[in-house]
Amino acid sequence: MVGDGEAETGPLATSWHSNKFLNPIRDGAVLPVLHLNGYKIANPTILARIPHDELEALFIGYGHKPYFVEGDDPTVMHQKMAATLDRCVDEIHAIQREARTQGIRNRPRWPMIVLRSPKGWTGPREVGGHKVEGSWRAHQVPIADPATNRESLRLVEAWLKRYQPDTLFDASGRLVEELRALAPEGSRRISANPHANGGALCKALDLPPFQEYAVAVKKPASEYVPPTDVLGKFLRDVMRRNMTSFRVFGPDENASNKLNAVYEASKKTWLAELEESDADGGELSVDGRVMEMLSEHTLEGWLEGYTLTGRHGLFATYEAFVHVIDSMFNQHAKWLEKAKRELRWRQPVPSLNLLITSLVWRQDHNGFTHQDPGFLDVVTNKSPDVVRIYLPPDANCLLSVANHCLRSRDYVNVIVADKQPHLQYLDMNEAVTHCTKGIGIWDWASTDQGFEPDVVVACAGDIATMEALAAVEILKGLFADLKIRFVNVVDLFRLMPETEHPHGLSSRDFDSLFTTSKPVIFNFHSYATLVHKLTYKRTNHENIHVHGYAEQGNINTPLELAIINGIDRFTLAIDVIDRVSRLRGIGDHAKERLRDQIIDHLNYAHTEGIDREEIRDWCWKG
Amino acid sequence: MVGDGEAETGPLATSWHSNKFLNPIRDGAVLPVLHLNGYKIANPTILARIPHDELEALFIGYGHKPYFVEGDDPTVMHQKMAATLDRCVDEIHAIQREARTQGIRNRPRWPMIVLRSPKGWTGPREVGGHKVEGSWRAHQVPIADPATNRESLRLVEAWLKRYQPDTLFDASGRLVEELRALAPEGSRRISANPHANGGALCKALDLPPFQEYAVAVKKPASEYVPPTDVLGKFLRDVMRRNMTSFRVFGPDENASNKLNAVYEASKKTWLAELEESDADGGELSVDGRVMEMLSEHTLEGWLEGYTLTGRHGLFATYEAFVHVIDSMFNQHAKWLEKAKRELRWRQPVPSLNLLITSLVWRQDHNGFTHQDPGFLDVVTNKSPDVVRIYLPPDANCLLSVANHCLRSRDYVNVIVADKQPHLQYLDMNEAVTHCTKGIGIWDWASTDQGFEPDVVVACAGDIATMEALAAVEILKGLFADLKIRFVNVVDLFRLMPETEHPHGLSSRDFDSLFTTSKPVIFNFHSYATLVHKLTYKRTNHENIHVHGYAEQGNINTPLELAIINGIDRFTLAIDVIDRVSRLRGIGDHAKERLRDQIIDHLNYAHTEGIDREEIRDWCWKG
Repeated sequence: MVGDGEAETGPLATSWHSNKFLNPIRDGAVLPVLHLNGYKIANPTILARIPHDELEALFIGYGHKPYFVEGDDPTVMHQKMAATLDRCVDEIHAIQREARTQGIRNRPRWPMIVLRSPKGWTGPREVGGHKVEGSWRAHQVPIADPATNRESLRLVEAWLKRYQPDTLFDASGRLVEELRALAPEGSRRISANPHANGGALCKALDLPPFQEYAVAVKKPASEYVPPTDVLGKFLRDVMRRNMTSFRVFGPDENASNKLNAVYEASKKTWLAELEESDADGGELSVDGRVMEMLSEHTLEGWLEGYTLTGRHGLFATYEAFVHVIDSMFNQHAKWLEKAKRELRWRQPVPSLNLLITSLVWRQDHNGFTHQDPGFLDVVTNKSPDVVRIYLPPDANCLLSVANHCLRSRDYVNVIVADKQPHLQYLDMNEAVTHCTKGIGIWDWASTDQGFEPDVVVACAGDIATMEALAAVEILKGLFADLKIRFVNVVDLFRLMPETEHPHGLSSRDFDSLFTTSKPVIFNFHSYATLVHKLTYKRTNHENIHVHGYAEQGNINTPLELAIINGIDRFTLAIDVIDRVSRLRGIGDHAKERLRDQIIDHLNYAHTEGIDREEIRDWCWKG
Repeated sequence: MVGDGEAETGPLATSWHSNKFLNPIRDGAVLPVLHLNGYKIANPTILARIPHDELEALFIGYGHKPYFVEGDDPTVMHQKMAATLDRCVDEIHAIQREARTQGIRNRPRWPMIVLRSPKGWTGPREVGGHKVEGSWRAHQVPIADPATNRESLRLVEAWLKRYQPDTLFDASGRLVEELRALAPEGSRRISANPHANGGALCKALDLPPFQEYAVAVKKPASEYVPPTDVLGKFLRDVMRRNMTSFRVFGPDENASNKLNAVYEASKKTWLAELEESDADGGELSVDGRVMEMLSEHTLEGWLEGYTLTGRHGLFATYEAFVHVIDSMFNQHAKWLEKAKRELRWRQPVPSLNLLITSLVWRQDHNGFTHQDPGFLDVVTNKSPDVVRIYLPPDANCLLSVANHCLRSRDYVNVIVADKQPHLQYLDMNEAVTHCTKGIGIWDWASTDQGFEPDVVVACAGDIATMEALAAVEILKGLFADLKIRFVNVVDLFRLMPETEHPHGLSSRDFDSLFTTSKPVIFNFHSYATLVHKLTYKRTNHENIHVHGYAEQGNINTPLELAIINGIDRFTLAIDVIDRVSRLRGIGDHAKERLRDQIIDHLNYAHTEGIDREEIRDWCWKG
């Protein structure tokens, strides 16, 4: 990293094309060194076995100016490498100086170094007649059995003696003073570089009061608003107040995901060529703080690097394609857990905030390939110390959750919220209370006040909540005396026992919300089994009946998709009739009519390509 | 694809570096065309905005010879493209001819085409004063509201009229004869290309009798053998018998994964430069049929392309890193489901066989980063019509399962089997019977013959099985009259209800194996919750207590790792004492001694870095 103390350090070089996002005015610089030592665990590397002109062309094609340091004589190579490093640093400074005095005229071609040296360099040259230095055999333990084989032990000794330990250590085994003096001190020690302990550099975000972005909700479920559009305005102002420590990341889809308000604060970083038409809505700028590249991997890597160096960010991505970064998420969660639980010197870093959007239930154009809410299953496998999942049912809840996540440290926060217009349920005060509890009874949607409920209708997620609410309305119309309790879940880990997750509800609280014996019809955003995974230890688990995505889909209307997966209002109402014992018999005719409605709506959707108006504009009558 | 009928068609170009694996003698060729139309959904593409010399260098660096077809006049571009295609095909033929007559002297630089044309070419040029053709606005619906806006409707009309429909269709709306005659017929129609319906080309593998590779098991659990090493020999002979239709794929780790016997049949494909030392154990060959590249994405893509064109393969990869291809797996499973259930004309294709190895429980060197058995959770979310999961407990079971998977069609088969030496339980006949049932009571490990069991000890996975067995031995020593039933699971979906998965056990069979009221202590390879996910509907579910990976780990000895995750013999035995009501009270002293042993073994492992000999060499006394 080459930069001065004032400039913001640039995102890490997580892909070779990352250099096209590096601003010589604002950012520090990365000097990539490709250590081309020729081998992996069992094979040559591809880049070590292509002609020199191809290799050079490759890095020129990536936008770099490559320098080659090649050889195997350590003394010569040391000087070559030092000279090349000096030259590259000078070039970086020249690029920065020019940009900072004269502005950016062309995208700089940053230097990079290809260091070609033997693998296992200065290790044993041969063992048992097989080449080791300069071979894949140097990848792991070069001499396998010195504990049991005298000849091997002699090889180890000969190898290590080549480093002349007598000249490096004194009689007591202590490094000689001259060498000890070479080590840098304080934060110049590589292990104490504050950039590698980003929490030490981290400053809290200056956040605007999120309440000011609230959607007015006079009556629950009476108006449709796209939640991410509301969030976008909040993020815009977070950006404005934190122009050196906050970025938004997204795969070319921040506009599609309705977060485009952020461009009012800062454009998309773009240092490649510009064309005239970009001025009309391109939202590109060399100064941009919105990171867009159609590579979830690169974005995840950038955000990880950004938080690990103490800055804050949010990565918004399509739900179905967040699986692209499953493995990166896993490793980051493992890293966080170790850092948090076992390494006390590590300061807490900003959380990795993932906004999962363009959700499974509204894929009217994209269809089956875009329907995959399974990332939550991957997340729930990681340590409860570091993962959090939120399913805010509406825009005000989303604001409250986002505010909470941006203030947090050392978590991966997963927020599930859609870009399409959805019903709004809670005003800002109610939303804050609801999100603080993480789970709660919605009084206005329940009919069991003062009574034991006959049934609990529970839900998590936007469309799941709307369909559950519509089911309650149907049931109220059919059975005026039915006692329904309506429970909504925002913080998914509330479902787990408190002994297994810090957010878990105590048995007493869970049993009081979900009863110990009444049927619970749970309408869930994702795969139904996830709710069972979280609740199987609960007293009333055998009465919890979950509806969720069942891997059924095509290019469907929203209701059609809900029906074929069984999360629609009619199927839920039928399930309630089936599960509440006193409705059996008296509910048979009602069930039949509900089944008729399902068929009618499916036929309409199939014929017309849209849902009936009464479905599209459905509101809670209350 | 350019190739003759006899040569095997090469794997698809799933990464730019794939061209380095394309053999001009044996393989068909791929002519990549990069359609550089400049924009994505909302941004310019990076490659469209770098200087021409960088772009050209990039593809030279990837090992291609790039040709550029650039412009926006359709008539001119049509001729240019045709001429360039002809030239490229000629070049490909020349490369193939030379290689086929004179052998391969250098890796060929295959031609490729960069086609640079405007996005939304010939679409509306402007809408509402905004550029559409040649802009990101052409990515989706270029004119949004013709249904409600007359001006927009006129724009659509003007646009479509530019294609001169009067000259293309006759009065009845039928395509004019001259144009109809242009369409190719039969299998030359793009929709009927047999390579795109690979099942039509697919021939069954010629498989050697897998029984011949059996490990002799005279006494259960008395000898340690690495299962993948045994599998490797079977795969070697599968390869030998199917030298044009079977390949093994792996990320540089087939040797590490002990599948190196396959190199006796065929080496690793390698067309890049060779060095002298490669002859000593490099196992490289231009003719190789083993595909190794340190990119799980590329390998998965190659294997998908290989099976979709009717050939067979197996992809072996480290368990923790199979998450890298979660998203690719998801999309392939979705594709298979649609192909199988909704598209009758599609012929069944060979299954995608994934061998998950280097498992969580034996990461003595690698530690926490290499401990992630969560891929199974992702797999269980996909349609039961297309996914299968097998956990063969030993080498003979692995052979039986592998044989079954290589014969199957239209599935993703996930086989979980380790590379380290593990105890062998079943002789070949027993293994075949056990794997055919998919789940079964191991009589020799049980003590409940002729009685109702006091407890069911169940297990799935190699180490989980060994620890469960060792727990039984401890319990037999402590409580001579305890009636233990030992159940092992190979086919994980046997646990699901038959109504939810074709492999699911009926309630009657499940209840008969697991009882309806006795405690079940289930020792599981992966995360414990997955067993609950699969069994929560079972009668006896509330008595099923699962032990599995709990995201606890470091660089641990095998027993240490088992203990900190609670899947070790001592913890299991304690759990049995706790759950079997008649052992409460009488088992207290035994529990205490077991706890002492846990502490003693942990201390030993911590001090010595290995497990005690009695653990390392543990065998079933019987």
